[in-house]
Amino acid sequence: MKIAFVIFNGLTTLDFVGIYDPLTRLKTMGFMPDLEWDICAHTEIVKDDRGLGLVPTAIQQPLRSYDILVMPGGFGTRALMRDQNFVDWIRTAEPCKLKVSVCTGALLLGAAGFLSNKRATTHRGAFQELKPFCRTVLEHRIVDEENIVTAGGVAAGIDAGLYLVERLAGAEARLKIAKQMDYPHPLRAGEVAP
Amino acid sequence: MKIAFVIFNGLTTLDFVGIYDPLTRLKTMGFMPDLEWDICAHTEIVKDDRGLGLVPTAIQQPLRSYDILVMPGGFGTRALMRDQNFVDWIRTAEPCKLKVSVCTGALLLGAAGFLSNKRATTHRGAFQELKPFCRTVLEHRIVDEENIVTAGGVAAGIDAGLYLVERLAGAEARLKIAKQMDYPHPLRAGEVAP
Repeated sequence: MKIAFVIFNGLTTLDFVGIYDPLTRLKTMGFMPDLEWDICAHTEIVKDDRGLGLVPTAIQQPLRSYDILVMPGGFGTRALMRDQNFVDWIRTAEPCKLKVSVCTGALLLGAAGFLSNKRATTHRGAFQELKPFCRTVLEHRIVDEENIVTAGGVAAGIDAGLYLVERLAGAEARLKIAKQMDYPHPLRAGEVAP
Repeated sequence: MKIAFVIFNGLTTLDFVGIYDPLTRLKTMGFMPDLEWDICAHTEIVKDDRGLGLVPTAIQQPLRSYDILVMPGGFGTRALMRDQNFVDWIRTAEPCKLKVSVCTGALLLGAAGFLSNKRATTHRGAFQELKPFCRTVLEHRIVDEENIVTAGGVAAGIDAGLYLVERLAGAEARLKIAKQMDYPHPLRAGEVAP
């Protein structure tokens, strides 16, 4: 199984790293020894929204061969959702079996057409912007539409990561990874859209 | 006010980014317009413990001119706490008025001598390793010794960041930043060492 973590100029790094940490622990803590991932970008270096530079491991490579696409958010999404080259690149992820967004990453999944007729969520400040791209915007922390999982703002990415850890490797893996991350906040009743 | 966020090979990126996000929002959300920061490293590029490359903004620069030093953890700490060049570089932060660690970043503050006669905490898996460097290892999520603040494992960095947001800019700033981060988990009673 191989994950594409997408990064782009103007991302909010915590949107990405909050889900990257628990998912990659599936391998480093031995639950999925064959798990692989790339950090995928359309540029050689990525600058986040506050000056930090990130180095991708795969540049302008098509995304179709990955099993899971993970899309963070940040103010950079507003320019990129109208950047045809970038959106065409995200569209190469169409065959990925599971597409995940954190925060305003949902706008990029939406711009690529992946949310058509789906329920989805995003940062509460972007509910209106997300509406045109999906069937219904929900205020839940996580919306699971089987092949599309969208999460709320920034720190909700940690919850989405742990939620997917459980989906991929079971409840015990989730508990052990959350403990190793020192994250004592299980999802509360009603936080995942039923 | 200027913050030095230290990064190094083998860091756990979430240790760094979990505290970088709330602290830098003090500027981006307008609470401390004059706040500045650097991402400081001893090498030109840093690789985290899972393959991600990070680009510092200040390389091998002395750390004495910063007001706040922020030290993340990760398995890379174990080699670096015995690397005299690296520890000497960290020691240049001695004049910084506030030194903060997340997770096993406490081992590096300890190796630099900053925890002598202080109470401190770290990831629960590193309590024994931290003991020789400080007066007492506490199991609290945050230990505040005024000029030294140490936090527990990985995700405790988010709590430490929000705790410092309140110390630096007040309770309202903390509430607004936590809301914008979609992080609905205030510190519980007893999580900060009294």
